[in-house]
Amino acid sequence: MPQIHRLDSRSKDFAARLDALLAWEGVADAQVMHTVTEILARVRAEGDAAVIEYTGEFDHLDVTTMADLELPASRLAEALASLPVEQREALERAAERVRRYAERQKMAAWQYTEEDGTVLGQTVTPLDRVGLYVPGGKAAYPSSVIMNAVPAKVAGVPEVVMVVPTPHGMVNPLVLAAAAVAGVDRVFTIGGAQAVAALAYGTQSVPAVDKIVGPGNIYVAAAKRLVFGTVGIDMIAGPSEILVICDGQTDPEWIAMDLFSQAEHDEQAQAILLSPDATFLDAVADAMDHLLETMPRGDIIRASLAGRGALIQVADLHEAAQIANHIAPEHLELSVADPEALAAKIRHAGAMFLGRHTPEALGDYCAGPNHVLPTSRTARFSSPLGVYDFQKRSSVIFCSPEGAADLGRTAATLARGEGLEAHACSAEYRVKAR
Amino acid sequence: MPQIHRLDSRSKDFAARLDALLAWEGVADAQVMHTVTEILARVRAEGDAAVIEYTGEFDHLDVTTMADLELPASRLAEALASLPVEQREALERAAERVRRYAERQKMAAWQYTEEDGTVLGQTVTPLDRVGLYVPGGKAAYPSSVIMNAVPAKVAGVPEVVMVVPTPHGMVNPLVLAAAAVAGVDRVFTIGGAQAVAALAYGTQSVPAVDKIVGPGNIYVAAAKRLVFGTVGIDMIAGPSEILVICDGQTDPEWIAMDLFSQAEHDEQAQAILLSPDATFLDAVADAMDHLLETMPRGDIIRASLAGRGALIQVADLHEAAQIANHIAPEHLELSVADPEALAAKIRHAGAMFLGRHTPEALGDYCAGPNHVLPTSRTARFSSPLGVYDFQKRSSVIFCSPEGAADLGRTAATLARGEGLEAHACSAEYRVKAR
Repeated sequence: MPQIHRLDSRSKDFAARLDALLAWEGVADAQVMHTVTEILARVRAEGDAAVIEYTGEFDHLDVTTMADLELPASRLAEALASLPVEQREALERAAERVRRYAERQKMAAWQYTEEDGTVLGQTVTPLDRVGLYVPGGKAAYPSSVIMNAVPAKVAGVPEVVMVVPTPHGMVNPLVLAAAAVAGVDRVFTIGGAQAVAALAYGTQSVPAVDKIVGPGNIYVAAAKRLVFGTVGIDMIAGPSEILVICDGQTDPEWIAMDLFSQAEHDEQAQAILLSPDATFLDAVADAMDHLLETMPRGDIIRASLAGRGALIQVADLHEAAQIANHIAPEHLELSVADPEALAAKIRHAGAMFLGRHTPEALGDYCAGPNHVLPTSRTARFSSPLGVYDFQKRSSVIFCSPEGAADLGRTAATLARGEGLEAHACSAEYRVKAR
Repeated sequence: MPQIHRLDSRSKDFAARLDALLAWEGVADAQVMHTVTEILARVRAEGDAAVIEYTGEFDHLDVTTMADLELPASRLAEALASLPVEQREALERAAERVRRYAERQKMAAWQYTEEDGTVLGQTVTPLDRVGLYVPGGKAAYPSSVIMNAVPAKVAGVPEVVMVVPTPHGMVNPLVLAAAAVAGVDRVFTIGGAQAVAALAYGTQSVPAVDKIVGPGNIYVAAAKRLVFGTVGIDMIAGPSEILVICDGQTDPEWIAMDLFSQAEHDEQAQAILLSPDATFLDAVADAMDHLLETMPRGDIIRASLAGRGALIQVADLHEAAQIANHIAPEHLELSVADPEALAAKIRHAGAMFLGRHTPEALGDYCAGPNHVLPTSRTARFSSPLGVYDFQKRSSVIFCSPEGAADLGRTAATLARGEGLEAHACSAEYRVKAR
């Protein structure tokens, strides 16, 4: 049997044991913060020169100008053209489905006119320029390029600038092909905190962006946190998580593999199954046992399950929904007979996968919804990455003279209550004008 | 003449001088961070006891239990009932208008069904519980209570918990009345980093919230930045700003007072006027000169204008719009003959005030749109506070068996390209099931 926590919601210490399993804090230590702070300051002050120096040092690249660290569009097109047909078509199909779903998320302006002629409303505009961080090396995921770049382009962002480190010159052709498919505008082969700094502050060669999105290691995460305010950032992502609720009627092998598909991401990933059926939990444990042998990333799966995984017996599906709302999982699979009834009870989840035929893996690649989702219980207050993250709103107020005279009296009363006389006078000029 | 920067967009060093004026960084120093980190850790570990101790120390309150630091609903109702009729009506009218505008911002769920029966969509749910920080003492603004609490209630947040320090027991009845009008559910008279910690982590008496909004001093801002991730936060606000674009045909006294209405907030506030009409800029400077004598907060206005204010001559209104897009101001007043034509050129602004009869002060109190707006150029990537900040989305995927079989092939191809075999197998189980 694989080592995995077994919990029962009826046990007295259940809440405490569950919270202990969920606890995760991705805190950068003082040494990381110190290093990153220094890198940010140097890139801000010295621009290209500092980026070139850090890239030489950290990525073992012997370059002398930033021109050596930018890939032309032709390079991306070549990477796409050179893929096996099946891979190219899969990438293009995924991008097309993500685009179609994203189109539904576009926000639109609105306004209304009051009786006295005053107009109130909200306009919507895209960001001017967005930076997309893509990790290098083994964690280089082309799907991540699509999931981050496509919504930005659908939002109407004119320029998406991608950065991706190429340690020892190692370039991932699938990542470049995904950039071509997703419509990325420029690509620099830089990474780490120095790439985040270049995007946030701009250098002679790298244009300053308005928002930085995309996953990265602890240095990248720390750098994003520090430049937040100068630019926007997406969430700081924690380890990936899946919570499966199953009524016991799905093939145990399917559920075991669905849990594996999160566990194989990394040792910190979290895979939890809730079921009212104790026999089914045993069957899933059995399935895990023999399926583990077939998994190339078996060691990672084993470590993930032993450290943060759990099979939890619950009283019924209603209780399962309550526990899911407490966990607020990134991915929630409802492998039950009536998934829509159960989904109606869910208040907090990044993405919900309904029914026995919707494994989470489909959402990672090509179902349509974004795979960048809130982790570590942040689905309590945040949303999947979407087009709305690349648009912003501006309020519009256009008072008629009548409206201004009327509102001016109310504003002046409240302003004086706050001791702000200039506010009151400014409003009253328009009252007197009537 | 009041001391204020005079710039001309034709001068060679214009861009550099403008950027120097705009530069602002609200960085908490190491001592503040150290103090706040310690307060957060103690409140997290010790709960109520630490909150009571800090409140005694910082707010000079001699209390022994948290019950002494919670105000009953009756206390809020009394505060409202005891206001002069004019103030009560103004508060109620402001809340009603903010509510009506906010209703338009509510996000709705959507879904669509594909040809093979697969359903894709997005649900929308409110946050469970929100914390609202309200500063104590002189900067206690009842309008701020309305602007933060009303959108949360419109979003459907069941519980809004307000914290407001009462140094030396000094309670602001207008703030309590505003809480009653806005529908705040609970009020604790605590403040500073200890209040932020209590809201973020929860104590025996203070319930943990999912998001903390509202303005505060440097300790509060630092605490919010540190608890971000455990809970959501709104933007870390910088000093208030107004940018006025005027064609020279508005009464110079009106424009001078509109600029004052930001400048009077604090010495760091920024008030800038752009006009193609040099004579008009002189007339506004003259108006400022004599109006300043009548202002109770004249010293603050003087300091703000001298430090960060500017009268800027531009070539024409088109150039003014370009400069506005660079500044991305919190408040943008378009005091021109055809404000809608000019507004169409604006890509980045928190709120736009169109026409000669729409002073920014109306937006601060009662026009309807929120007065919590992105500052310090963050309107490049962020939006006014709104109902959408108290709702979040969850993706929904419900594959038909046919849809799962079809998507499973694409997903498996991409998963193998990323070296994630469990993802591929999980998808392929549903392919084989057909």
